[in-house]
Amino acid sequence: MQGPCAALSSLIESVGVVEAARAVRECELPESLLGPTARRREIDSAARDLEVMERLGGRLVTPDDPEWPAWRMLGLRQLEPGRDRDGAVPLALWVRGPRSLLESSERAIAVVGSRCSSGYGEHVTGEIVGDLAAQGWTIVSGAAFGIDGMAHRAALAVGAPTIAVLACGVDRAYPAQHERLLAEIAETGLVISEYPPGTVAHKNQFLARNRVIAALADGTLVVEAGLRSGARNTVKWARRLGRPALAIPGPVTAASSAGCHRMIREGEALLVTRADEVIDEAGPLRLSLPTTQPFDPGDRLQGNEASVYAALPEIGSRQPRAIAETVGLDLPTVRAILPALELAGLVGTDENGWHRTANPPSR
Amino acid sequence: MQGPCAALSSLIESVGVVEAARAVRECELPESLLGPTARRREIDSAARDLEVMERLGGRLVTPDDPEWPAWRMLGLRQLEPGRDRDGAVPLALWVRGPRSLLESSERAIAVVGSRCSSGYGEHVTGEIVGDLAAQGWTIVSGAAFGIDGMAHRAALAVGAPTIAVLACGVDRAYPAQHERLLAEIAETGLVISEYPPGTVAHKNQFLARNRVIAALADGTLVVEAGLRSGARNTVKWARRLGRPALAIPGPVTAASSAGCHRMIREGEALLVTRADEVIDEAGPLRLSLPTTQPFDPGDRLQGNEASVYAALPEIGSRQPRAIAETVGLDLPTVRAILPALELAGLVGTDENGWHRTANPPSR
Repeated sequence: MQGPCAALSSLIESVGVVEAARAVRECELPESLLGPTARRREIDSAARDLEVMERLGGRLVTPDDPEWPAWRMLGLRQLEPGRDRDGAVPLALWVRGPRSLLESSERAIAVVGSRCSSGYGEHVTGEIVGDLAAQGWTIVSGAAFGIDGMAHRAALAVGAPTIAVLACGVDRAYPAQHERLLAEIAETGLVISEYPPGTVAHKNQFLARNRVIAALADGTLVVEAGLRSGARNTVKWARRLGRPALAIPGPVTAASSAGCHRMIREGEALLVTRADEVIDEAGPLRLSLPTTQPFDPGDRLQGNEASVYAALPEIGSRQPRAIAETVGLDLPTVRAILPALELAGLVGTDENGWHRTANPPSR
Repeated sequence: MQGPCAALSSLIESVGVVEAARAVRECELPESLLGPTARRREIDSAARDLEVMERLGGRLVTPDDPEWPAWRMLGLRQLEPGRDRDGAVPLALWVRGPRSLLESSERAIAVVGSRCSSGYGEHVTGEIVGDLAAQGWTIVSGAAFGIDGMAHRAALAVGAPTIAVLACGVDRAYPAQHERLLAEIAETGLVISEYPPGTVAHKNQFLARNRVIAALADGTLVVEAGLRSGARNTVKWARRLGRPALAIPGPVTAASSAGCHRMIREGEALLVTRADEVIDEAGPLRLSLPTTQPFDPGDRLQGNEASVYAALPEIGSRQPRAIAETVGLDLPTVRAILPALELAGLVGTDENGWHRTANPPSR
């Protein structure tokens, strides 16, 4: 299991994981998978990986596990494999830490940013994370130097849950200087990765890792980012998943805020200045919809659900904010309705927002 | 002449200024004007006012003067008098300084902000004004403490033209501590007011004055603003006039940037970080349209003009940015086309953007 590969995900989805593993081992594969699986075909490290995890007190969480945050992965599932190699739902997650992944990510904000943070950025991270944690929010981040590390530390400082998503195996410390921080997170929060134990961090894995950070949270907040910061990639994932992307402004004289300003200016992220505003944008999702009743386009929907569905164009996508403005509902309500309509198969998300599904279920 | 009064403006517009003056003196007035003119009916200070101005080396610029910036006032003219008491075109402007008001305001940015500016705000004002001035832009502001004063000073420092718009007579210094600054501006730039010599600054005059600041510029930039700053009022006028409203972000820990952040967050102003971005938003207007050919809705318009006109809704208004996105033109092009369509009587502006006029001229 070596990170996201859309073709492999498709195979597993169609034939099941056991049959897919056999097909890889015995080389009965479509051409698209012959290359990607060739180098590791002979290797079956499953037993050894699980042993390493047991020694670490960790576990492998798969999609059939009750702890699997299926809800969180909804947006990823819908990305077309052919179009977006890195967009697949993780095949599984390697997890260290005492908490349930499902419960910890129920109310979560991703707080990310520049490795080269300033005193200002670290101060603001501490303040906002402290306030978010006090209101019961889990902080998801990437355990990097700078803002990431500060976000985890600020959560640990107030005894709040925090999830570190790594681009290497959870048995490794990356960066090495954060070994102690990661050990602390694993004691009270969660250290997770889609890469098996022993995997070394590679550049493309950081980009893929960012989608897991964005997926596990209700919204992504960038505290500081230079113009070339990887935080912009996490923001891109948040937007693609239909979740709010937020950025903190700073002095225009500081290079460490230039990426935040650009994202705000270009409409990629919304300007926020404090925890209240983050929560206003990111949730909580107020799910007031009856789940026993099936949805149906048009007539079957009633009240706000019907309005929200009607506000989606026949062609193309819209952002929740635009929908809220059109139908005159507040943003949290619209944000609560859309995922319910998604569960009912009526709507989906793409990089431009929410859209009607091509073939909604008839009942 | 005592500042904006929409009913009086209407009277002057329909019967001419000489007849309107006679009507006021002889009390032959509609009921709406009996009150507003009663207290000053007996006073005819015209000769004395002009004498004061001559002594100051100033002048009275009226709408029939070649120096009158008629183009700049277009948005104001269209505000309905009944609806917006303060929205009328100034009846005239009292002017001190060696420059032509028309030419000085041809490429102009309003730079305004908090009276309680920070070192950061003053530094950024100096940098941006210096860069704008170097590219030939006039700086318009209100000569107040803080950002306003810094904006004028930064323009003077590089020998660039600057216009101070006062809420009192141009023979007075407000604030008194800026007497020397105002004298310097009057030497190389312009000090102007719609209030006659001797008028003392009153609170409501500041709000009315802000519309003149916004009207004389291609866009309004707020460098720093607290939550209760008057700069927000100038931004409101800029938006109502269909001109870009821009704000500089700052540390979220600084109260002096809180107003800027709120305006950006609520979509009232666009985040900018440097002079280049200000110029990108505010102009220059590239007027490439043939002025000899009359415009006509629908068939008569061609090319980009037809597209821009078509992108305006039948009912309601749109912002230039949305129009640009719809028709696939860049923003400066759309910003150049709209005023030309306005001159042709086909479109107009209101607080929500640009709209089609109800009765476009047939030829």
